[in-house]
Amino acid sequence: LVALISVPIRAAEPLASWNDSAAKEAIIEFVKTVTDKDSSGYVAPEDRIATFDNDGTLWTEHPMYTQMAFAFDRVRTLAPQHPEWKTQQPFKAVLENDLKAVAASGKKGLVELIVATHTGITTEEFEAIVTDWFKTARHPRFKRPYTECNYLPMLELLQYLRANEFKTFIVSGGGIEFMRPMTMEVYGIPAEQVVGTTIATKFEMKDGKPILMRLPEINFVDDKAGKPVGINQFIGKRPIASFGNSAGDREMLQWCSAGTGPSLKMLVFHDDAKREYAYGPANGLPDSPFGTFPQDLMDEAKESGWVVISMKNDWKTIFAPEKE
Amino acid sequence: LVALISVPIRAAEPLASWNDSAAKEAIIEFVKTVTDKDSSGYVAPEDRIATFDNDGTLWTEHPMYTQMAFAFDRVRTLAPQHPEWKTQQPFKAVLENDLKAVAASGKKGLVELIVATHTGITTEEFEAIVTDWFKTARHPRFKRPYTECNYLPMLELLQYLRANEFKTFIVSGGGIEFMRPMTMEVYGIPAEQVVGTTIATKFEMKDGKPILMRLPEINFVDDKAGKPVGINQFIGKRPIASFGNSAGDREMLQWCSAGTGPSLKMLVFHDDAKREYAYGPANGLPDSPFGTFPQDLMDEAKESGWVVISMKNDWKTIFAPEKE
Ligand SMILES: [Ca+2]
Ligand SMILES: [Ca+2]
Repeated sequence: LVALISVPIRAAEPLASWNDSAAKEAIIEFVKTVTDKDSSGYVAPEDRIATFDNDGTLWTEHPMYTQMAFAFDRVRTLAPQHPEWKTQQPFKAVLENDLKAVAASGKKGLVELIVATHTGITTEEFEAIVTDWFKTARHPRFKRPYTECNYLPMLELLQYLRANEFKTFIVSGGGIEFMRPMTMEVYGIPAEQVVGTTIATKFEMKDGKPILMRLPEINFVDDKAGKPVGINQFIGKRPIASFGNSAGDREMLQWCSAGTGPSLKMLVFHDDAKREYAYGPANGLPDSPFGTFPQDLMDEAKESGWVVISMKNDWKTIFAPEKE
Repeated sequence: LVALISVPIRAAEPLASWNDSAAKEAIIEFVKTVTDKDSSGYVAPEDRIATFDNDGTLWTEHPMYTQMAFAFDRVRTLAPQHPEWKTQQPFKAVLENDLKAVAASGKKGLVELIVATHTGITTEEFEAIVTDWFKTARHPRFKRPYTECNYLPMLELLQYLRANEFKTFIVSGGGIEFMRPMTMEVYGIPAEQVVGTTIATKFEMKDGKPILMRLPEINFVDDKAGKPVGINQFIGKRPIASFGNSAGDREMLQWCSAGTGPSLKMLVFHDDAKREYAYGPANGLPDSPFGTFPQDLMDEAKESGWVVISMKNDWKTIFAPEKE
């Protein structure tokens, strides 16, 4: 009996889908340090803030950002009410599935697409549209809901951090109201812990009922140098752990690094064409307009002690088994 | 022994500083409804969002907003570096303690004061200045730190809601970075649950170190119709309980009311000149530029079932005993 009691019950192994490589070790060592009251690097639970990029860090961003797939579907849905789109870019390109022509429309075209598909409706209407879309849309390659194209090792990481009293946040260039309808179910992250790009919104009374109308204007872009700004504005604390996958996360990781205590910075590197995708252009992989990981980011990671996660070598599994 | 076990241990009485009047009863009834799984009004813990205005709802806002007292002190501190302020409004008025002349400078003057006292420094510098100020500044009438000029019954309400698995947020017209240094210690509300007015902020590298510079520009005003916008942007869920004290909270309470389930809306009415202050102009009390409670808000409260808290009649105590 005494022997039984003295053997601690073994908890389900954390980070089970991670190989026993340096990346996993870095996570476990960091968590040990900040949760050990006798360590000089101890951090009180209320300051254990971890921020996660979404596209390419928590879920797949190829062959295009999920939100872009949503916008394209919205264009197709709305096209009958807009006969002019047949000849008008970038809508014509979307309807003809011509990604190159969409790209050629540049930032101006992208904003036009967002305005046409994401605004002019109330926040409640938009939430319902997004929720419906997630129910039916499927990833073209993996043939499963986009909400099941997230990375199992990263879900385990989120859970592991929360089990160690971290508060986990998403800090994404994606639309905040595009993500919020799914973050709780998919990542266990509640709406109030999602930071993202916002649309200008206006309070109005309509038929005696208050509404929030989404205006045809982008309010805040939560990407690159916008990420530390968004973190400061929404969270008001500097994260001690930050996770990203592209040049859009550089400033967030720099901001995380600049605190006084220990911090963990990691970048997911997509080097697994077989199980997911491979793109850089760092390390000689093909370039990509979605989630670009340039060589100078790879160099900065090396110099700064940011851990680069190789999807190929560090992860046993990419996706969770498909749900029924 | 059996008798002892069967008698439940009596918990410390909630809302002990509230008189047994309709306001206290409304709170307890509402909490009972939304936490009772057998009730049709049951709300899952993750959706138990409560939003609190700060000035005049959680702490004193007379003889002027605390943040204004801070700005005035900053003008005095910075005055030696700005000899021109001796003749330039609104600074001259501040240095001469001439509140009427400050008021006469209008919104333009207020913005000039904020820009001069709140911007042109980093977020870290501003946080340090605010933290220091709270340590030494004293309320002119109550002769105690501003951080001890909060209302004990409201602290009990915050605690009572949190004990019932509510998440409590501040949603204030005050500056978000002015409040955050004190909200955890004073209200038990962490920085990431504070919504407020924001200053435009820019990420920069300075001497190889990332900083966030506070620019001379107000980014977002979290007041009146801005409150539902701020709630939607920062929290992303509609509150089921909202607490305010002035015309600045009208739209927040309307937004809270418009949900599908039960909701609690309350307004603190300052009718206690003896223990705190009395102002309206509702119910014939004197008008006030800080925390104006107009008669049409009182009428709307009555029509809409918003509970008006009389500080005089509903609260046994206003402030907690002074700390040593
Ligand atoms: Ca990304
Ligand atoms: Ca107020």
